[in-house]
Amino acid sequence: MTMNVIGASICDEELLVQGEARDIQLPNTEHVSQISVDVGGSLAKVVYFSRKSGTKGGRLNFRKFETEKIDECIAFIVKLLEESRATRPGHEFVIKATGGGAHLYYERFREELKVTIEKEDEMECLITGLNFLITEIPFEVFTYSEANPMCFEETPADPFPYMLVNIGSGVSILKVTSANTFERISGTSLGGGTLWGLLSLLTGAKTFDEMLEASQEGDNRNVDMLVGDIYGADYSKIGLKSTTIASSMGKVFKKNVDKRQFKPEDISRSLLYMVSNNIGQIAYLNAQAHGLSRIYFGGCFIRGHPITMNTLSYAINFWSKGAMKALFLRHEGYLGAVGAFMKHRSSRRNSRSFTLTEQLAQKLATPEADLGVTLAQDTLDVVAAEESD
Amino acid sequence: MTMNVIGASICDEELLVQGEARDIQLPNTEHVSQISVDVGGSLAKVVYFSRKSGTKGGRLNFRKFETEKIDECIAFIVKLLEESRATRPGHEFVIKATGGGAHLYYERFREELKVTIEKEDEMECLITGLNFLITEIPFEVFTYSEANPMCFEETPADPFPYMLVNIGSGVSILKVTSANTFERISGTSLGGGTLWGLLSLLTGAKTFDEMLEASQEGDNRNVDMLVGDIYGADYSKIGLKSTTIASSMGKVFKKNVDKRQFKPEDISRSLLYMVSNNIGQIAYLNAQAHGLSRIYFGGCFIRGHPITMNTLSYAINFWSKGAMKALFLRHEGYLGAVGAFMKHRSSRRNSRSFTLTEQLAQKLATPEADLGVTLAQDTLDVVAAEESD
Repeated sequence: MTMNVIGASICDEELLVQGEARDIQLPNTEHVSQISVDVGGSLAKVVYFSRKSGTKGGRLNFRKFETEKIDECIAFIVKLLEESRATRPGHEFVIKATGGGAHLYYERFREELKVTIEKEDEMECLITGLNFLITEIPFEVFTYSEANPMCFEETPADPFPYMLVNIGSGVSILKVTSANTFERISGTSLGGGTLWGLLSLLTGAKTFDEMLEASQEGDNRNVDMLVGDIYGADYSKIGLKSTTIASSMGKVFKKNVDKRQFKPEDISRSLLYMVSNNIGQIAYLNAQAHGLSRIYFGGCFIRGHPITMNTLSYAINFWSKGAMKALFLRHEGYLGAVGAFMKHRSSRRNSRSFTLTEQLAQKLATPEADLGVTLAQDTLDVVAAEESD
Repeated sequence: MTMNVIGASICDEELLVQGEARDIQLPNTEHVSQISVDVGGSLAKVVYFSRKSGTKGGRLNFRKFETEKIDECIAFIVKLLEESRATRPGHEFVIKATGGGAHLYYERFREELKVTIEKEDEMECLITGLNFLITEIPFEVFTYSEANPMCFEETPADPFPYMLVNIGSGVSILKVTSANTFERISGTSLGGGTLWGLLSLLTGAKTFDEMLEASQEGDNRNVDMLVGDIYGADYSKIGLKSTTIASSMGKVFKKNVDKRQFKPEDISRSLLYMVSNNIGQIAYLNAQAHGLSRIYFGGCFIRGHPITMNTLSYAINFWSKGAMKALFLRHEGYLGAVGAFMKHRSSRRNSRSFTLTEQLAQKLATPEADLGVTLAQDTLDVVAAEESD
């Protein structure tokens, strides 16, 4: 299995999705053989496999849509199916669907896509997808620190047990003890949806990317109450530094003045810290209760954003005194969709049939620093010996 | 020790504080002998002991001020001192001060109050105060449920170990194993200050009481994303009901429309749930990690507010499957100030010298339901045999 470091095909697809140029076709030398979809509270994720005729290689493609605009997601899949039917007349398509939307939109999918929709359990898909990425995809899992933003992990000989913290609109925490044994042990309603909701009300930001961008410019100390604001110094007796956040947004009500003085970027940073810190703390407490030390963070909340990953890493490291590790994934947002994809019968039979192409294996062997920025998340070129599709 | 069920003296004091009638004097048959102050990030709490000349009885008085308006707090104490000096010329006053403000405002207190200020450790005061209230004050500790909003606890034979979750601007979590042995085991920056800050930006509310009132009228389902909103039904396989909150404020960003459609009261209820649920969950996880089953909730965040107490109780009960108990206090906001008060030398020597007056003991023996509403939190009449003051 290999990774596509070029990603040139993305632009075309973007255009297709935005509906500005619906007549643009995917290159007709490729056809789509398998599709899966994971519809969450805020985002719908699509994974599909495409391959060029006559070659062994192929590509896993990753796309996401706002759940609110499920029409666009359906239109996109309709297009994929149309093009694929043209190259493979008579083929019977099956779409694997997971996430809450697999239930909520089941009838619409069935009627509008006119294919068989097979619902798959959300938690099971998350774990199937994560297990696949952990064990099969090199340079997928990494730890984050400011000094070394993308330190790739070796594929572990035995990945179990581990914990998955999946951060979408809300947060699910799963304990995984073997490839097929897992339990949802906890969760919190304070997730991505909370941050997006609050920031869309409190700042002018229209997209989550705008919010993340703003947070990078902000200084949370203008709105957060620090230990130093209360004590005038450290509270060293109990190990609280003057710079520790005592109360997120705690300065706002105190300064009971013109609220316009509080800048959107400062609020963005404060709330990003608040949500990330809180998830990190709850993750740590659950990992501690269950004796787990490897914590994978997945879900569309993270989006490879440095401050988010740094905060989650810091929280895990701080609370566990270095005993636990926060692990991130390049395809963090697609665990459920990849898992559903793996449920396709032909994929399952061949779960170990993916191999690296020689050319890419070489590229991946170059120093990690060079890879960090250039690895694209949108596609994953694979050499897959599918028995049937 | 007895409780004052009349509380007639409160109105005068309110006027005094608001500065509308500064020439009103406390009844000159009373004098103040001891004062303590606990200055937190948002609120400054004052406890003082007053007694009538020639009687054995006396009264613990409880007052709070916004820390931002520390001038008012200082002016109030100056007034207390002036009046008391008039009745007890030559007496050397000592004020016990705790909380971060004991450090931050130390010089101001010393200069403006012109008395000896003795700083006391905040966590130690919280525990000293709580231990005093638990063991010495009948009808102080209660559990909350909608069916029985104030079910008073018997004074426990051995109160240890227990956990204290003190919710002020931020949250401190302490494990207490004996009268003098405790440790701050955790905390969160998501506390009262966070709720007050967010709601002051998101709603027109100017005071925390307005915010609490609004929350009582609100319906969080208009802004929160429920499991049913994502699944269209329960996610019964993992025990999530359709009414479970999947994402606090998760509907706001989804409905990417005119933000004015989101009502202040709905937002108030959602965020009150969010903060209370989150504190309850972190409290449970810490109690579980330390094998504690009695969890006291203190701090000015609670304010005897039914929804807050119900949410905290529900969270502890839900996560612990009924194994742990959320305990509340009538003087929840004054733990630190009471603890600092107990550090006065004469009080310490007599920590077990408080007794119930017969008349009040009788009143307290009446059915709890009758007491619930009438017990005032602002004063506590005591018969204290102070050796010196």
